[in-house]
Amino acid sequence: MTTSNNHTKQQLTPTQRSQIKRKSKRGNYETQVIYNILDEALICHVGFTVNNQPFVIPTAYGRINDKLYIHGSPASRMLRTLTKGIEVCVTVTVLDGLVLARSAFHHSMNYRSVVIFGTATLINDPEEKFVALQAFTEHVIPQRWQQIRQPNKQELQGTMVLSLPLTEASAKIRTGNPIDDQPDYDLPVWAGVLPLQTVAGKPIADERLIEGVEIPDYVENYVRNYNI
Amino acid sequence: MTTSNNHTKQQLTPTQRSQIKRKSKRGNYETQVIYNILDEALICHVGFTVNNQPFVIPTAYGRINDKLYIHGSPASRMLRTLTKGIEVCVTVTVLDGLVLARSAFHHSMNYRSVVIFGTATLINDPEEKFVALQAFTEHVIPQRWQQIRQPNKQELQGTMVLSLPLTEASAKIRTGNPIDDQPDYDLPVWAGVLPLQTVAGKPIADERLIEGVEIPDYVENYVRNYNI
Repeated sequence: MTTSNNHTKQQLTPTQRSQIKRKSKRGNYETQVIYNILDEALICHVGFTVNNQPFVIPTAYGRINDKLYIHGSPASRMLRTLTKGIEVCVTVTVLDGLVLARSAFHHSMNYRSVVIFGTATLINDPEEKFVALQAFTEHVIPQRWQQIRQPNKQELQGTMVLSLPLTEASAKIRTGNPIDDQPDYDLPVWAGVLPLQTVAGKPIADERLIEGVEIPDYVENYVRNYNI
Repeated sequence: MTTSNNHTKQQLTPTQRSQIKRKSKRGNYETQVIYNILDEALICHVGFTVNNQPFVIPTAYGRINDKLYIHGSPASRMLRTLTKGIEVCVTVTVLDGLVLARSAFHHSMNYRSVVIFGTATLINDPEEKFVALQAFTEHVIPQRWQQIRQPNKQELQGTMVLSLPLTEASAKIRTGNPIDDQPDYDLPVWAGVLPLQTVAGKPIADERLIEGVEIPDYVENYVRNYNI
């Protein structure tokens, strides 16, 4: 049975480089699906090329609407290189589980990943920079921004912020059980999915915390897996 | 006080591209440190360049001694491209915690990452292929290999396996508390570290599991965080 859907889901148009080729059924170009993965993950892997040499650097990020922001020190080789307008590929991966089949061959993982292509833009406007830094903090730990000392002019100047448009991107998603070869279903082997999550442990207070400051709820009850 | 150490720790020699430039104190070139990070993480991000366009693709991997193995279908664009001997950069990141400072500026993350440079080699020898596939499975879920149907000749032929030498690589590690500006230590803001771990949930048995097959201990008691 098919159900009708009155909502038009906003989709990105796949390009030569963003189109999922292998296991194309796992591909997804819906902006909301892409945004949800980006909002849940904490780390992206930034790929860029210098003299034919690829580099892949892990870094934190934030998202505002259809822009991804990365940041760091003006001394960062990666950021300085990206300001030259070279092609960049940013990949974000959330691992949801181990897929344990009856055969080694059909072992797999359940995951949600996003690959973004484009070129980065240096943000010079102090206001956009400030809002981007807010987005970083709120991406990592919602509700934190209002409690902390926000960046001053000097810190803003000492932070390089780049934006990347979320216009050429795709998600790839695997869910569900292992798919075994027919004869293997008779094997007495446990098969299924072992779910994996990013889970927060007990917060460790800084040694120099001033007396009477309590752990905020948003730290104590931190949850990352929005979609599970 | 310094302590003497009779063990000579095996170190990789940093090269132009593998040397940690930013926050170089976080850099580490000990092979055992690098191996431990690789053995704990589940996913690597493979970076390669085609016509100046970088690609970053997440994939599973295994390690045997000083070689990293990746694998997949012979139809995989990534694997076919890498067999051409082009430069590759493989990055592995384990996120250990959120570092919550009193100022937005000093927020950070505790992490352990490894960046590997080199060129990949296609494995044609069926025996090395078989052992590499064993290493994949045992990397993801130790003790699994002996219980499952191991690859047959056809499956071995239908799997492409590449190796990458772990000779030009570096680790980068951040641990510990936030480092705030002196005046900020007087702020009534909770600061510290929120540890993060990859934790297994309740195993979900496949619907077609044959009767009487019990969950193995290595699934039920799966632990990933070896070093915490």
